Amino acid sequence: MKDSSPNVDSPEWLAEVRFDANGLIPAIAQDAASGDILMMAWMNAEALTATATEGQAIYWSRSRNKLWRKGESSGHQQRVLDIRLDCDADVILLKVEQRGGIACHTGRRSCFYRRLEQGRWEVTDPVLKDPDTIYRPHPQQGD
Amino acid sequence: MKDSSPNVDSPEWLAEVRFDANGLIPAIAQDAASGDILMMAWMNAEALTATATEGQAIYWSRSRNKLWRKGESSGHQQRVLDIRLDCDADVILLKVEQRGGIACHTGRRSCFYRRLEQGRWEVTDPVLKDPDTIYRPHPQQGD
Repeated sequence: MKDSSPNVDSPEWLAEVRFDANGLIPAIAQDAASGDILMMAWMNAEALTATATEGQAIYWSRSRNKLWRKGESSGHQQRVLDIRLDCDADVILLKVEQRGGIACHTGRRSCFYRRLEQGRWEVTDPVLKDPDTIYRPHPQQGD
Repeated sequence: MKDSSPNVDSPEWLAEVRFDANGLIPAIAQDAASGDILMMAWMNAEALTATATEGQAIYWSRSRNKLWRKGESSGHQQRVLDIRLDCDADVILLKVEQRGGIACHTGRRSCFYRRLEQGRWEVTDPVLKDPDTIYRPHPQQGD
């Protein structure tokens, strides 16, 4: 009977998700309250499953080549309120509650703090917290 | 004197953008008024430059392998009000005005119309317009 029961390690909903050739899918994090887009990172199947199970955003760090529990060093976790999939099943949208109000490793609210103006990328958003005070004792870029 | 003038074909701001190994960058389209995320697609340097120049969203279609002027067959163009770049310079965010109020080729407002609920992807958003009436005479998926 065990064979017909759902496999918790590889749930049905996960089979519908189309990961790319590297086994990854882009995941957009949107602030659930303000609607601001905070960041975009990548997930593999393990990261997406863990995110759904734990209700905390867990990405795949392409630079460190390992699971990246958002906020593990900064304390800026993202509580996941909603997980959405797009029409082609190849992009994930998370609606999150951003702890500390800071998603970006530069100490800004959002990673999208540069705006194209008159042919230049102009910084429009302030640093809310000095990154040196966020990451101690082991600063990790991209967190 | 001509040598020191900016090259309009390859502007300075474009050199700061980090395209991936395939020469592409993810571009998120957000409704400027509501904050809703409408879709995510891809751009190459040509698409991004054309988007900045024309003020209309122009993507790169990976399936058709050509520039994809959003709305060229559906009429659902996206007027671009804002172009943003993230901290790693490898994701673009567009704030757009969505013509017709429909971004998705399924006839829905947003491509993110499925929500993970109790281990299933549940459709939460209605079809606003029958895709058969949107795409004529030549329906094109992904537009």
